Amino acid sequence: MKQSQTLIPTLREVPSDADIKSHQLLLRAGFIRQNASGIYSFLPLGKKVLQKVEAIVREEMDAVGGVEILMPALQPAELWEMSGRWGTYGPELMRMTDRHNRAFALGATHEEIITSLMRDEVNSYKRLPLTLYQIQSKFRDEKRPRFGLLRGREFLMKDAYSFHSNKESLDHSYEELMRAYSNIFRRCGLNFRAVQADSGAIGGKDNHEFMVLSEIGEDTIAFSDASEYAANLEMAAVTAEYEQQKHSGNSMKRVETPDQKTITDVAAYLDVQAEEIVKSILFIADEEPVLVLVRGDHEVNEIKVKRALDARVIELATTEETIKYLNAKAGSLGPAGVSENVKILADNALKAMGDLIIGANEEGVHFINAKLERDFNVSLFEDLRFILEGDPSPDGKGSIQFAKGIEVGHVFKLGTVYSESMGANILDENGRSKPMIMGCYGIGVSRTLAAIAEQFNDENGLTWPVNIAPYDLHVIAINMKDEVQSQVADELYKLLTDYRYQVLLDDRVERAGVKFTDSDLIGLPVRITVGKRASEGIVEVKIRKSGEVYEVQKEELTDKLQDIFRQLSNI
Amino acid sequence: MKQSQTLIPTLREVPSDADIKSHQLLLRAGFIRQNASGIYSFLPLGKKVLQKVEAIVREEMDAVGGVEILMPALQPAELWEMSGRWGTYGPELMRMTDRHNRAFALGATHEEIITSLMRDEVNSYKRLPLTLYQIQSKFRDEKRPRFGLLRGREFLMKDAYSFHSNKESLDHSYEELMRAYSNIFRRCGLNFRAVQADSGAIGGKDNHEFMVLSEIGEDTIAFSDASEYAANLEMAAVTAEYEQQKHSGNSMKRVETPDQKTITDVAAYLDVQAEEIVKSILFIADEEPVLVLVRGDHEVNEIKVKRALDARVIELATTEETIKYLNAKAGSLGPAGVSENVKILADNALKAMGDLIIGANEEGVHFINAKLERDFNVSLFEDLRFILEGDPSPDGKGSIQFAKGIEVGHVFKLGTVYSESMGANILDENGRSKPMIMGCYGIGVSRTLAAIAEQFNDENGLTWPVNIAPYDLHVIAINMKDEVQSQVADELYKLLTDYRYQVLLDDRVERAGVKFTDSDLIGLPVRITVGKRASEGIVEVKIRKSGEVYEVQKEELTDKLQDIFRQLSNI
Repeated sequence: MKQSQTLIPTLREVPSDADIKSHQLLLRAGFIRQNASGIYSFLPLGKKVLQKVEAIVREEMDAVGGVEILMPALQPAELWEMSGRWGTYGPELMRMTDRHNRAFALGATHEEIITSLMRDEVNSYKRLPLTLYQIQSKFRDEKRPRFGLLRGREFLMKDAYSFHSNKESLDHSYEELMRAYSNIFRRCGLNFRAVQADSGAIGGKDNHEFMVLSEIGEDTIAFSDASEYAANLEMAAVTAEYEQQKHSGNSMKRVETPDQKTITDVAAYLDVQAEEIVKSILFIADEEPVLVLVRGDHEVNEIKVKRALDARVIELATTEETIKYLNAKAGSLGPAGVSENVKILADNALKAMGDLIIGANEEGVHFINAKLERDFNVSLFEDLRFILEGDPSPDGKGSIQFAKGIEVGHVFKLGTVYSESMGANILDENGRSKPMIMGCYGIGVSRTLAAIAEQFNDENGLTWPVNIAPYDLHVIAINMKDEVQSQVADELYKLLTDYRYQVLLDDRVERAGVKFTDSDLIGLPVRITVGKRASEGIVEVKIRKSGEVYEVQKEELTDKLQDIFRQLSNI
Repeated sequence: MKQSQTLIPTLREVPSDADIKSHQLLLRAGFIRQNASGIYSFLPLGKKVLQKVEAIVREEMDAVGGVEILMPALQPAELWEMSGRWGTYGPELMRMTDRHNRAFALGATHEEIITSLMRDEVNSYKRLPLTLYQIQSKFRDEKRPRFGLLRGREFLMKDAYSFHSNKESLDHSYEELMRAYSNIFRRCGLNFRAVQADSGAIGGKDNHEFMVLSEIGEDTIAFSDASEYAANLEMAAVTAEYEQQKHSGNSMKRVETPDQKTITDVAAYLDVQAEEIVKSILFIADEEPVLVLVRGDHEVNEIKVKRALDARVIELATTEETIKYLNAKAGSLGPAGVSENVKILADNALKAMGDLIIGANEEGVHFINAKLERDFNVSLFEDLRFILEGDPSPDGKGSIQFAKGIEVGHVFKLGTVYSESMGANILDENGRSKPMIMGCYGIGVSRTLAAIAEQFNDENGLTWPVNIAPYDLHVIAINMKDEVQSQVADELYKLLTDYRYQVLLDDRVERAGVKFTDSDLIGLPVRITVGKRASEGIVEVKIRKSGEVYEVQKEELTDKLQDIFRQLSNI
């Protein structure tokens, strides 16, 4: 492609509304433009990269038996009512009515459509398993679109759905899809982890998110420094063992702690460590009050509390509620002397504590020397806290470290929630009707593009991996008005295109500085500069990522490039 | 692809709501399914065909310098307000509001988005010409979605927009795009014509529709039986010369024609030919009354009237208006004695008529022996009627025939309507600011798929052309439980896949009759049947379209297929 015949509107300035590298660089290098908040156009270079990602996704999906289809963006509300999500999805689901006032959702996801399709077309176990996928625009009205393509309102997604007549078949497909996803992100050059994620209301432990490691990630990953273990922060089980502290035998004693609101304040005021204090937090779980206790230096993990209680809904108590149940406000709560209708849960760490410092359900007052069982009772000890860096890895290998991640993929065992609500049944081997078992598998295609840009850049611009770069080579003539240079550049453009390289030729009449700056910004893997020595048959080859530069005889160019690309492909 | 691993839900019955061949067969052969009125899912086979059409579109668009991009479906209302179309597009434009109550259009077309993009990114003639295209879902809330994919509400379209600094450049791109479109539809195997179309309010004579010839087409094409000439019915100029009839010299005479409402009625009642009667029709053109006269056997072409008057808006007069201006109702109108503020236009044919029979502006009464100029005056003679079969072709070669057509493509010189309203200006060679000149070029990708199905079928099902078929070959074992047959089928599947054929293997345990019926319905170009003679190393090769059958030794199969496909590719 000749640069004069395409649209690559580079920018010198960093756009003021772009606060992360990938967003800034995709705008500056002319890959994308914003049309509205969270809504983007992919310009020629952006579209090329999208297509490369899509091609990899298709190859790997096909390799595990996925079959491609295309479902509509406009989805009748009736289907969403049938699944129950028309009411529960909230304002993120974009909705509209047609000229006959019939309501539609703009596809945020396609479980309803695919389940209704399978319900209508497949009724025997003999036709399963089946994995269908599509690559298509999705619509989600994010409250706060940001980070460019990372959190947009219209974005490209690959979504896949698998259907099974038994659990083993789902397990098998799940494993295959996990492998396909690893292949996809590896081929995109990404540094990523497959992490265990919360299954939310749907349940089932098999639920993995594919996270690209990045400082700007919105999720924290807890991973082992000595194994493959990785989980979302809220999912990581704490298996730490605590050294048992002895109780002094002293009886519980009331102490004044005026105006000391936080654990840190109280510890300083009483001259003790935070881990000697008990943090007491009141939740309302399915409308019942539950007081949760964790060690002062730990943080309560609400998801673990919810799971320990097997609760449907859990919320932090309001001030009204803490007063109603404990006659005190948050910051002064404690377990001693509370009414029996307040259930008390404690994190495992509490069992090992000695003399406890607890809130007295009275402002500006604490109890010291409190003792478990003597001064209050706990109905359940459980793992209720967030894991910390340095905690042992739950798989017993190494210790936990944290990293930030960008979620680019998600695989999930859906089970029968949709097939049951929508009546997608099959007859099994014994002629009995039962709901299909489903898995679902998503990849944010445009988000993956942004994640790659986030991992592949330097101070001068983007540094695309070979598999993903919009073109392989950037051919630049320093001075297009110089006949020899422009002729050699043209000749190389034709030659290298014949060699099946994808070549971008900067044939613009611009200053060399402008061309080099743009070239670095765009970030193709290799640049070939045709300059003064073109008359001697010598051109310059520069590897964008490493900065390595070679002077190469024209005749040796294809051999040299073969070496370089062989090397670059082993990222 | 093994049939057991994909989804091809064939139907034996013709779906009751599908009334044309392509719709019936695409449903029956399991290519598509309807999700809502005018909204479809493409199942695995349908998606394959779509991708083949898309690939041809991309190749031909790239060959004429088109550059692919991807714009969003969600388009801010402000852009449509700027172009003026938010108010004028009507209920076909789907609209919605986001969570912040901001209005959006769902892209029915992308002139606004692309023009705003070009306005923001390009400001010099040096960056032009530029042709940008995308393949993307479009949304139009058709009043009456029908004919399956031919008139849907969500459909796949390739839309392209070219930008120029001068008219010659637009002319050049227009020619190139015309050629690209011809290539695309030819490669799709279609029997089509590029026809001149009405330019509507925008003007300019360069406006062509690509019409696939088909009885179920909604448009009538007038084409020459001896040249390339083809135009939409309403566009075809009438160049007929009429034999001059002499006037009898008799004076105009009032005759009773009680209850004779139509030209046919009056002709029968007076025992004359329809061509001796004048048809008089009152229009309101830009709020002024205009009486239009055509010969009784001709039909008024409103578009020609509008053009002759250079009117902005033209409408048939209401009864209220005919009474107001002519004191009579439609059916009794005539040109004699009408007030001077009613302009009278006549079709060229009238000049050659002798004694005229005209309405008397009085119910149940006509005048006979009327004479032009003596009894009434015509302010303008023009070509105002629809062309008829048998009329001479306007290019002077041959005579006109009619055919019905399905519009699959449209190329159009937009000019500066969008660039002016949206302020997309460039500086020209002299440093003067002027609006970019635009062309736009659409192809209904999913509609093209349906048009192919409409042209390629027989009583047993679809008969895909080689370039477009979802797979090249259908391999069928008559009895999968027969070990030799299933083994040979498997072997051929692998062999032919290695030879880079796209193969569909029917590995289902079904009766042979079911397999053959499905195979004919799906319509892959060539079927290979593995039956009883598989044990002798012999299989049957059948060409779907011609029905030719060969018994072939396994060892000779690839040679035979090479011959067949070479032959089939020369459609």
